[in-house]
Amino acid sequence: MKNYLFVLNKSSPKYKQIYEHFKSLIEQGNVKADEQLPSVRQLAESLQVSRNTTLTAYNQLVAEGYIRGEGRKGFFVNPLEPSLHEEPPILSNKKRVEKKASVHVDFRTDAVDQSHFPLKRWRRTANHVLTLPESFRYGDPFGEMSLREQIAIYLLQSRGLRTDENAIIIGSNTQQILINLGRILREEYSSIIVEDPGFDGAREAFQFHHFSLEYFPVYRTGADLSQLNQMDSRLIYVTPSHHSPYGVSMNIQQRQTLIGWANKIQGYIIEDDYDSEFRYTEQPFPALASIDATRVIYLGNFSKSFLPGLRLSYMVLPEPLLTRYKNQFQNFESSTSIFSQLTMAKFMENGEWSRHIKRMRLVYKRKMTFLVSLLKKHFGQNISIIGEQSGLYVLIKVYLGVSEEWLIEQAFLNGVRVRPTSIYFIKNHSDDPIIKIGFSGLSFDEIEYGVHLLKQAWL
Amino acid sequence: MKNYLFVLNKSSPKYKQIYEHFKSLIEQGNVKADEQLPSVRQLAESLQVSRNTTLTAYNQLVAEGYIRGEGRKGFFVNPLEPSLHEEPPILSNKKRVEKKASVHVDFRTDAVDQSHFPLKRWRRTANHVLTLPESFRYGDPFGEMSLREQIAIYLLQSRGLRTDENAIIIGSNTQQILINLGRILREEYSSIIVEDPGFDGAREAFQFHHFSLEYFPVYRTGADLSQLNQMDSRLIYVTPSHHSPYGVSMNIQQRQTLIGWANKIQGYIIEDDYDSEFRYTEQPFPALASIDATRVIYLGNFSKSFLPGLRLSYMVLPEPLLTRYKNQFQNFESSTSIFSQLTMAKFMENGEWSRHIKRMRLVYKRKMTFLVSLLKKHFGQNISIIGEQSGLYVLIKVYLGVSEEWLIEQAFLNGVRVRPTSIYFIKNHSDDPIIKIGFSGLSFDEIEYGVHLLKQAWL
Repeated sequence: MKNYLFVLNKSSPKYKQIYEHFKSLIEQGNVKADEQLPSVRQLAESLQVSRNTTLTAYNQLVAEGYIRGEGRKGFFVNPLEPSLHEEPPILSNKKRVEKKASVHVDFRTDAVDQSHFPLKRWRRTANHVLTLPESFRYGDPFGEMSLREQIAIYLLQSRGLRTDENAIIIGSNTQQILINLGRILREEYSSIIVEDPGFDGAREAFQFHHFSLEYFPVYRTGADLSQLNQMDSRLIYVTPSHHSPYGVSMNIQQRQTLIGWANKIQGYIIEDDYDSEFRYTEQPFPALASIDATRVIYLGNFSKSFLPGLRLSYMVLPEPLLTRYKNQFQNFESSTSIFSQLTMAKFMENGEWSRHIKRMRLVYKRKMTFLVSLLKKHFGQNISIIGEQSGLYVLIKVYLGVSEEWLIEQAFLNGVRVRPTSIYFIKNHSDDPIIKIGFSGLSFDEIEYGVHLLKQAWL
Repeated sequence: MKNYLFVLNKSSPKYKQIYEHFKSLIEQGNVKADEQLPSVRQLAESLQVSRNTTLTAYNQLVAEGYIRGEGRKGFFVNPLEPSLHEEPPILSNKKRVEKKASVHVDFRTDAVDQSHFPLKRWRRTANHVLTLPESFRYGDPFGEMSLREQIAIYLLQSRGLRTDENAIIIGSNTQQILINLGRILREEYSSIIVEDPGFDGAREAFQFHHFSLEYFPVYRTGADLSQLNQMDSRLIYVTPSHHSPYGVSMNIQQRQTLIGWANKIQGYIIEDDYDSEFRYTEQPFPALASIDATRVIYLGNFSKSFLPGLRLSYMVLPEPLLTRYKNQFQNFESSTSIFSQLTMAKFMENGEWSRHIKRMRLVYKRKMTFLVSLLKKHFGQNISIIGEQSGLYVLIKVYLGVSEEWLIEQAFLNGVRVRPTSIYFIKNHSDDPIIKIGFSGLSFDEIEYGVHLLKQAWL
């Protein structure tokens, strides 16, 4: 019999080293099929370990099929094919060296204000939720009922939308909801109308299901709904309360036209009401779905109004879509954290969320006013400002005869980041470049310094 | 001019009552198009409110398009179509009356042990994460890098799988990941092989993309891989370390056969490694992907090993699928809570998670042993026990000449819930009914009482 002696170290359990050693001998072909291994006792003696240790190692090898026990005769190697591939490169331990630009102010559009977040009260609620038995289970595939009830109350009070908690589906974000919804709609519809310019993320979610897209034009003054009658699709995706990106709202006549169209052709309107809470010059407009919910699929989320990191969105489905949706997805797990759901439900129930919204409306209004006044002061007639009535960003159209790319790059070289809007436009291009400036996550000082840097970069 | 007097109450802001009053008059046709409204001053005087209040109400009506201002001439009603639909029924305030059965013990399979959860340490970590700026943003569409790094380390140490954090994609659950993955695979493949019996949730995720399904048989003794060569598909979904539901594992020869097959036909194996942490008789087997990662898509999650409510899953993608996946989904938002991700990453980094796994392996092993001994004692030759070596449930095959439905209903009538397995079987049916019994969320006392109730129900 071969000599199987090898040196044991102290870095890992002994049985594991023995197991690894034999496994590697077998895999590398150094021990042939049907060869007999030393007995449990022999191996224990030669390695100076207990028999229990060698037996544990052998049992693991037996369980995985590397060797077999033949009763009193001992242990034998099983036949095994040689390794098929080279070993992949070892996991790199060195940290990635990232290209670090010295960005001093980032007018990002994906952040909310951190300084006014009700941290203590949220923690208290979250810590309580973690003691509930529901937190240790998978949860309702369509969302926790306590949150759906709170959303129904909110939609009635703040968005004028009468619905029932059973018609509400909780998801983790708008795109994930559109992917699921698209599965149902695609059975009946093959194309959809989207806004141009419009939210690129929604377009991509529709393309996930190979919907063909028709574009209907939106201008800074509003949508051109007269184009609807020349289109073939019977589905439309819109952002009526705060157009993405122009920020314009549909008035009651446009809303009625849209609903009349959907009723006439028996189609559906997908209303993405993504940040209607933050309207500064008037109260938020009632939802489109508040006029006629039978032809409107309403989408809402807590990313802008509370915390994007929670990943909490929802939709309200009219019949018969609701029944079809529930049939399709009854055996799918929820994709949304139970903690996020239960904590948010409790927070809403206690009135904390509506207090937070009220507080943030004032905070964001002050930030918006401050940003707009600085932009006007420093850039004067070189820019025009779009969409300052609502939302967590503002657009500026820049009349300097330069490209969007140049504006973004010059800003970057001067330590300030701004975002493009060209990604939202398909055919209905703007003549001058339009830049998107988010302010929600910045302090007043940062906003001031950022505008100063933009001036240095552009003028 | 009409008399617009009405009574203001104290339940909501005055401007809002005025706005609501006029909006409803216009919608109901009680004020006609182009009719002139009282001036701001007149209305303020007749209602005994400030001019500011009436102006705010009018401005809101203007903004939404119900009325228009014509400079000094005052405010006029805009044309509006009559309401198209009856008002939907008002939101019901009464609580739903649910059919309450008196279930004393629920052998549910969707819960984890709550009593051993490291609540304090998790809270401390979670509370810290809530102070990080990352928590107030949207996050990386493919998952937070700190968590991906920790998963890469775990996979190398515990599953023998060498990978890179860039090849790891975080998702919220297995089905959501399969829906996204399916979008990529469907471009090249139209059918997939699944286990029979097998996880119904995976089948449904493949049907989401209209994959046609081929079934390959699995028995309590293991899979019959000889059938692979008669199949047309070049994709296969398997649970090699702990078959769902039988609990059997593939040995090294079967694993090699499977990998050889995938290499030969240039296909892919989807390895769902959903609960491999809990193996009681030996150490967990290395992942299939540890043998050859080029043809294996590895899926893992934290639902069984930690907390289902977190909704945290992941996959490791081989090239060229990884590049195609990242191209397809680069503009999609993450569907996973940033708090769950960052807290889990910190927890893993501190070694808390691996300590928890070790502790829970012992806890669950004791529960499993206890449950199995009770079942054997009370049911003897009337049942056989399947899959007690690993996992958070056990199957029992019942030789009483009765149906699965009868067993579940009789149990329910006696205050104990158990789960069917027939949903997992397609063609490869079992002759006698097989019942699934989960124990992870129950105490020893509950397990004992539950088995007692089952005996009352069935014998």
